[in-house]
Amino acid sequence: MSLNEIKRFFEPSSVAVVGASRNPFKFGSIIVHNLKSLGYSGSLYIINPHAGDCEIQGIRCYRSIKSLNRPLDLAVIAVPSDAVPMIMQDCADGGVKNAVIISSGFSEVGELGKKKLDETLAIARRAGIRIVGPNTTGILSLGSRFTTTFVPLSGNLQNGSVAFISQTGMFAGVMLTYILTAERFGVSRVAGLGNKCDVDDSDILEYLYDDPDTRAVMIYMEGTTNGRRFLETARWFSNKKPIVLLKGGRTIIGAKAAFSHTGSLGSRYELVEDLFQREGIILASDMDEMIDYAKIFAYQELPAGARLGVVSVSGGAAVMASDIISELGLKLATVTQEELSGIQKLSPEWATVGHPLDIEPLMEKVGGNEAYMIGLETILRCPNVDMALLIVGLGIFNEEMDAKMVDVLAPVLKNATKPLAVSLIGPRSHCDRAIALLEEMKVPTYISVTRAVKSLAALAKYAHTRKSSLT
Amino acid sequence: MSLNEIKRFFEPSSVAVVGASRNPFKFGSIIVHNLKSLGYSGSLYIINPHAGDCEIQGIRCYRSIKSLNRPLDLAVIAVPSDAVPMIMQDCADGGVKNAVIISSGFSEVGELGKKKLDETLAIARRAGIRIVGPNTTGILSLGSRFTTTFVPLSGNLQNGSVAFISQTGMFAGVMLTYILTAERFGVSRVAGLGNKCDVDDSDILEYLYDDPDTRAVMIYMEGTTNGRRFLETARWFSNKKPIVLLKGGRTIIGAKAAFSHTGSLGSRYELVEDLFQREGIILASDMDEMIDYAKIFAYQELPAGARLGVVSVSGGAAVMASDIISELGLKLATVTQEELSGIQKLSPEWATVGHPLDIEPLMEKVGGNEAYMIGLETILRCPNVDMALLIVGLGIFNEEMDAKMVDVLAPVLKNATKPLAVSLIGPRSHCDRAIALLEEMKVPTYISVTRAVKSLAALAKYAHTRKSSLT
Repeated sequence: MSLNEIKRFFEPSSVAVVGASRNPFKFGSIIVHNLKSLGYSGSLYIINPHAGDCEIQGIRCYRSIKSLNRPLDLAVIAVPSDAVPMIMQDCADGGVKNAVIISSGFSEVGELGKKKLDETLAIARRAGIRIVGPNTTGILSLGSRFTTTFVPLSGNLQNGSVAFISQTGMFAGVMLTYILTAERFGVSRVAGLGNKCDVDDSDILEYLYDDPDTRAVMIYMEGTTNGRRFLETARWFSNKKPIVLLKGGRTIIGAKAAFSHTGSLGSRYELVEDLFQREGIILASDMDEMIDYAKIFAYQELPAGARLGVVSVSGGAAVMASDIISELGLKLATVTQEELSGIQKLSPEWATVGHPLDIEPLMEKVGGNEAYMIGLETILRCPNVDMALLIVGLGIFNEEMDAKMVDVLAPVLKNATKPLAVSLIGPRSHCDRAIALLEEMKVPTYISVTRAVKSLAALAKYAHTRKSSLT
Repeated sequence: MSLNEIKRFFEPSSVAVVGASRNPFKFGSIIVHNLKSLGYSGSLYIINPHAGDCEIQGIRCYRSIKSLNRPLDLAVIAVPSDAVPMIMQDCADGGVKNAVIISSGFSEVGELGKKKLDETLAIARRAGIRIVGPNTTGILSLGSRFTTTFVPLSGNLQNGSVAFISQTGMFAGVMLTYILTAERFGVSRVAGLGNKCDVDDSDILEYLYDDPDTRAVMIYMEGTTNGRRFLETARWFSNKKPIVLLKGGRTIIGAKAAFSHTGSLGSRYELVEDLFQREGIILASDMDEMIDYAKIFAYQELPAGARLGVVSVSGGAAVMASDIISELGLKLATVTQEELSGIQKLSPEWATVGHPLDIEPLMEKVGGNEAYMIGLETILRCPNVDMALLIVGLGIFNEEMDAKMVDVLAPVLKNATKPLAVSLIGPRSHCDRAIALLEEMKVPTYISVTRAVKSLAALAKYAHTRKSSLT
């Protein structure tokens, strides 16, 4: 029952946008434009008291929802906050089931704003209307081609398996465009919850639990109204799919900023941090980490343990990786000389082959790409290795060789039964090309050894919590 | 005297490459190719015992240095390690002053290798030859168009103000191609020191101290032969120019890898860390940080204090920045309501303007780019602000608006008398374009709030140490 209510936010069959006008730069107008360019196939209406009985962007326009005289799954409200209570009354009168309030100017701006919100909420509760927002961009659901965002959507929107729940709308908007253009893993659903006057993270998690399009969830959270419910929901959810959470307002200064931003009152992070981790939530310390972790969860299966095998183009990078592995509490896998004897035989006489596997000597004998291939294949075969990191240097030989790298590696990557990640160093254009090819094969690729190791650590940590919770 | 010896590594007037052949993929052959494509203007010879009295790549080839019968500033040795002692004897006989030994297979591979190196060193010492290496890519000096690297150089090499001293040659090579293609700040000199059998970091720092092309130095260090001298040199150097140092082998696992890589014996990092910081060295925990910090030192002057002003496109990003500022021990500047009254007046009525400055409300009234401009200008004017962070969201309005962003900001950026950094979020192509324009104006730009704040923190930390050392 409650689940169907939430589903309506992501897959509404009829929608009215309140606040679209002939001015194309108005948030409401952009929302309509986005819905059209996404190809939303439900019934779509515009509500504007000053522009009834006409068409805007080819969409039929009404003076009020009541005058539309049709039951609606969802109203998207993008008008100044002063008008919102009145609009909510119109929603109630017109039989609207759900509402996304885009407008800001509520609990985040003090007493007067809080009063306006209370009034709006009272009307909605009486009419049984569920609310996302206010103060947000709301919903994006690529599977159902639906959105309420006022950030212009353009180009190819990468449909993927990661959902994103964010407290801040603008942030969800710009960050989303970053993810959709700089990363390849793609998103399934986005929920910008803003001030969370009604629907919160737990509601969305309940919906995503059975969502076949969603494999992992990122959450940016400043605060939550019902902490106990969130922890219980997160524990239940994490046993099926991973949650990567970035907490805003971890520090006193940050918490102060969060309060003036979304009216959220956070708790002391040290306490929350511990509780979150106990429920299996993977914590990210910034946006980059959140995206990095989401990528590895989107692409890779879980490892059987935390013992990492490393194949590196360079001794220096192997040293760096070893340091980071230790500092993160991962284990560098124990690989015997015997397991490496094949590589020792192929290497120049002077080379001492060990683990982490510096394949520079091997390269001199068998060629760069072949050395990566043999090295990775050997390390993945070792029974003590649970997952692998391959550090590739591009621009060492020539461009054609770099272009062939992924082709040479493909058989090993395709047959790998253990999770792995690739870290690239080299000229940017070579790296960009290689990332595209590798991630097409669902190999998470990072232009940073640290970020690759951290992501593998997140994968191992989640696998460990999942396993513990089952025993 | 000793300084001139080091200078000869970077600005030799005559050079012989030992080990170039008709095989274009040999390291020696690539080195010759690189020297030609860089446009090295000194005298250049090839030494190859099997190919005397001919030309390779249009360069005159001799059987030995002795038979060349000309005094040489530098020999670049790229032959198998077994042959190196013999070649060094030839260098001594031929009156060579300096040598870069590219070859690996020495102290990093055990007793036999160590013996070969000892033999080589003894010959060099008797003849007064200074050595860089072995086991490295050696030198790149863009000002003098000179290099000894075997990593193919191609395209535009960005001449800049940051020098790079690295213990690992391959790493220096591939990382360098990354810096030169993905970053815009450019390098002045690179020294890949490898096993450091003779010339070490301190020698290079002494040369760079007065190098007009070098404004800041990055060091990747696994170990040092003379720790006391390095600390003294670093203190002296840091009072003039910043050193950003990444230590390899910080952990036991990492130190083990470092030993098999360059034969370096590290000390416990906790001890070293403290000593380094006391001498004013800025420590980076990975390659990304090292490059990020180098960028801000390359572009910005030092701040008078550590109080940071923040202008943000989004409340969420402002919260994130506040958290990171606190966690790094920076101070969020105190900005009064009065100082913000101009912005309050321009903003919508419902907005409460505070610091960190969320300019989303202001945007609704004056437009996106104008809001950044007014916000940044206001924050930079505040007497309590020592430096500023501007968080820009792209892709919110339209592409033309994004394209004009830097133009609108230019007057404020040009007149800024306090250091600043920009953090971008948004579609990748918009970000790439904006970074290019901003960094042309020497504004360090990051696609990460964390990395921008960390870089500003490094700048403030160095300024603080410099000031303390003067009083």
